[in-house]
Amino acid sequence: MTVRTLQRCLPETAFAWIDRWSPLTATAALDSHAAVGQRLARAVLADSDEPSAALAALDGFAVLAAETEGASDYSPLPLTLARTGPLNPGAAMPVRSGEPLPVGADAVLSLELADVAGKSLEVAGGVAPGDGVIQAGDEFRVGEALLPAGHRLRIQDLGWLALAGVDRVAVHRRPRVRVVLAGGYSREVDGELLGALVGRDGGELKGLDMAPDTGTLTTTFARPDADLLLVAGGSGLGDNDHVARLLAEHGILAHHGVAIHPGDGAMLGQLGETPVVGLPGAPLGCVCAYDLLGCRLLRRLAGREPLWPYRGERLPLSRKIASRLGRLEVCRVRVVAGQVEPVAVSEGRLFRTLARADGVVLVPVQSEGYPAGSEVVVYGFDEATVMSSTQRYDPHG
Amino acid sequence: MTVRTLQRCLPETAFAWIDRWSPLTATAALDSHAAVGQRLARAVLADSDEPSAALAALDGFAVLAAETEGASDYSPLPLTLARTGPLNPGAAMPVRSGEPLPVGADAVLSLELADVAGKSLEVAGGVAPGDGVIQAGDEFRVGEALLPAGHRLRIQDLGWLALAGVDRVAVHRRPRVRVVLAGGYSREVDGELLGALVGRDGGELKGLDMAPDTGTLTTTFARPDADLLLVAGGSGLGDNDHVARLLAEHGILAHHGVAIHPGDGAMLGQLGETPVVGLPGAPLGCVCAYDLLGCRLLRRLAGREPLWPYRGERLPLSRKIASRLGRLEVCRVRVVAGQVEPVAVSEGRLFRTLARADGVVLVPVQSEGYPAGSEVVVYGFDEATVMSSTQRYDPHG
Repeated sequence: MTVRTLQRCLPETAFAWIDRWSPLTATAALDSHAAVGQRLARAVLADSDEPSAALAALDGFAVLAAETEGASDYSPLPLTLARTGPLNPGAAMPVRSGEPLPVGADAVLSLELADVAGKSLEVAGGVAPGDGVIQAGDEFRVGEALLPAGHRLRIQDLGWLALAGVDRVAVHRRPRVRVVLAGGYSREVDGELLGALVGRDGGELKGLDMAPDTGTLTTTFARPDADLLLVAGGSGLGDNDHVARLLAEHGILAHHGVAIHPGDGAMLGQLGETPVVGLPGAPLGCVCAYDLLGCRLLRRLAGREPLWPYRGERLPLSRKIASRLGRLEVCRVRVVAGQVEPVAVSEGRLFRTLARADGVVLVPVQSEGYPAGSEVVVYGFDEATVMSSTQRYDPHG
Repeated sequence: MTVRTLQRCLPETAFAWIDRWSPLTATAALDSHAAVGQRLARAVLADSDEPSAALAALDGFAVLAAETEGASDYSPLPLTLARTGPLNPGAAMPVRSGEPLPVGADAVLSLELADVAGKSLEVAGGVAPGDGVIQAGDEFRVGEALLPAGHRLRIQDLGWLALAGVDRVAVHRRPRVRVVLAGGYSREVDGELLGALVGRDGGELKGLDMAPDTGTLTTTFARPDADLLLVAGGSGLGDNDHVARLLAEHGILAHHGVAIHPGDGAMLGQLGETPVVGLPGAPLGCVCAYDLLGCRLLRRLAGREPLWPYRGERLPLSRKIASRLGRLEVCRVRVVAGQVEPVAVSEGRLFRTLARADGVVLVPVQSEGYPAGSEVVVYGFDEATVMSSTQRYDPHG
């Protein structure tokens, strides 16, 4: 048995290596609903003018603006009510928002400025040409870029696309992620967690493979068949670091022993064109290392901002957090009565720390921690863990 | 044609009405992966102790702690290396994190404190009983609540559930939402938007029905067959407010003309046990009224916090925002070079304002707006629109 000390790599070095990977160029045509949250690979162009002719912008009466000049509450002007267009001189025609403006009209009088009296209309105010009208081409003109390439599609864009008759868009393909469970007693647990995390970060889970021995792992490494390979387990101290050895043999072991805790044994490398993240087998370290390294790399490949996946909020610390200099500490915390409370170190090795924690506080490499009473940024696992008035609108708050 | 002025209802009154609705009590058993983000209807109980026997908490050597007493770098103590348990006196056995502790051992010596020399081990430090050991029942004991009722399931809980062998959980059923497109030229656009918004807010889209006439609407109102009914269009000023009339005839029209803009014609009511939100047909008003009223009601029925769906961030305003007293204004804005810029009012009626806006600023009922240069909270449609260092961890930032 050979005992070896892991070579240490600073998190910044690991992040810099990750950030050198480029977004996938492959594209896919998706139903626009399914594409929400993804970046457009190409601009969406309009193939016609919209609207093709003038429309009423509100419920009211189509009129010729010049005929309402001088009308007021005190001296209303009468117009004849017409049922259909084209609009004759002296007439007004009821229109609803979005209906075509009849030929002969150039404005829409709002209901507030009109009183119906039998077959005629009393106009109580003047309008200018174009008032209450959406002109032909006001929404977009043929050839116009409705949404630019690189735009991240939002729900709010779906109406705009529907208006243009666009139901499929080209997006960057979701990275295909293969998860290999290489060791440790927690393989199934790691698989559960990593499968869900890959989905959260926009990856398509290509496989969740057990690799109980170096033979199986060698087969996978020879042909990863994915855009990103995540290997959990088999990367600890001692004799079970065969993942690092095989990675160095079949490809490049770029960084081994990224200085994050939990997650100490994490490594980065590549097999041909496929980046590889080696994660510890212990679930807590596996999730921490995935969130810091795997998530960033996956988002990078997907063309998304390479950001930490949780939202933060400043809150006071009820007990001190201690951390060792030289490593990025992911400290599990609870939020109790608006205060951040670190989870006891004695619980650190248990699965339960993850389930019992509300979120984490990150202690940078160059810090030894934070004293009780200081303000720290807590990143909540759940959207509702931390919430300030500036983050969420609450009409009662 | 009868012209009527809408009765006005303050947003707070509408919100209070919404907040009287209770979460659905019906439950569903879901695969735990699919249940992420939903609230547990019942506590998840452990049906065994975990672990059932003591495990190694780290890679190292199983020992009897008493036999390491007094060992140090300067005076290492020798132990015999054993391959299998039970552990005899004077022996140490290599174990990996998560493996069962052999009978006879009560601690795990870490690799750093041990040097292998042939068939014996040099112990360079003492350990106490229980060091490096996860004791039987340390994770959980039979009958313990792994997760309480009401807990919102997070990805981080999946490992904990997998460890306990739980693959299905009871959650509050997703509210079934029927969307009825009652009027206006933008029915299809409204359908696209509302379908996606309902999905975002945890509803299950039960139907997307066209109701071009009062007959169709009457049929739906007689038997809504959903947990929430959203009716878009047919709720404006003028003669096309048949939704309000039919709602009052078949059920209760609780509030009509909620003072929000865009979204002026919105109404609230109920048909038997089913709450109804009437939304304007114009897409911009439809989305604004949905986000303020429909989203809140849907989240309420789903047992989620009844919150506004977008995250906010304080940023300076580059041009003034004007609003009319007495209504909640949803002002579409762009974020340009870190400054908030309201979208021109002239664009207010166009679909494009929604696609071209980055988010909104809310102006309360009692405010006439904000001067240029003031700090406002902008709610971004996309997660990446607004982002401060306190909201997202960026290791380079």
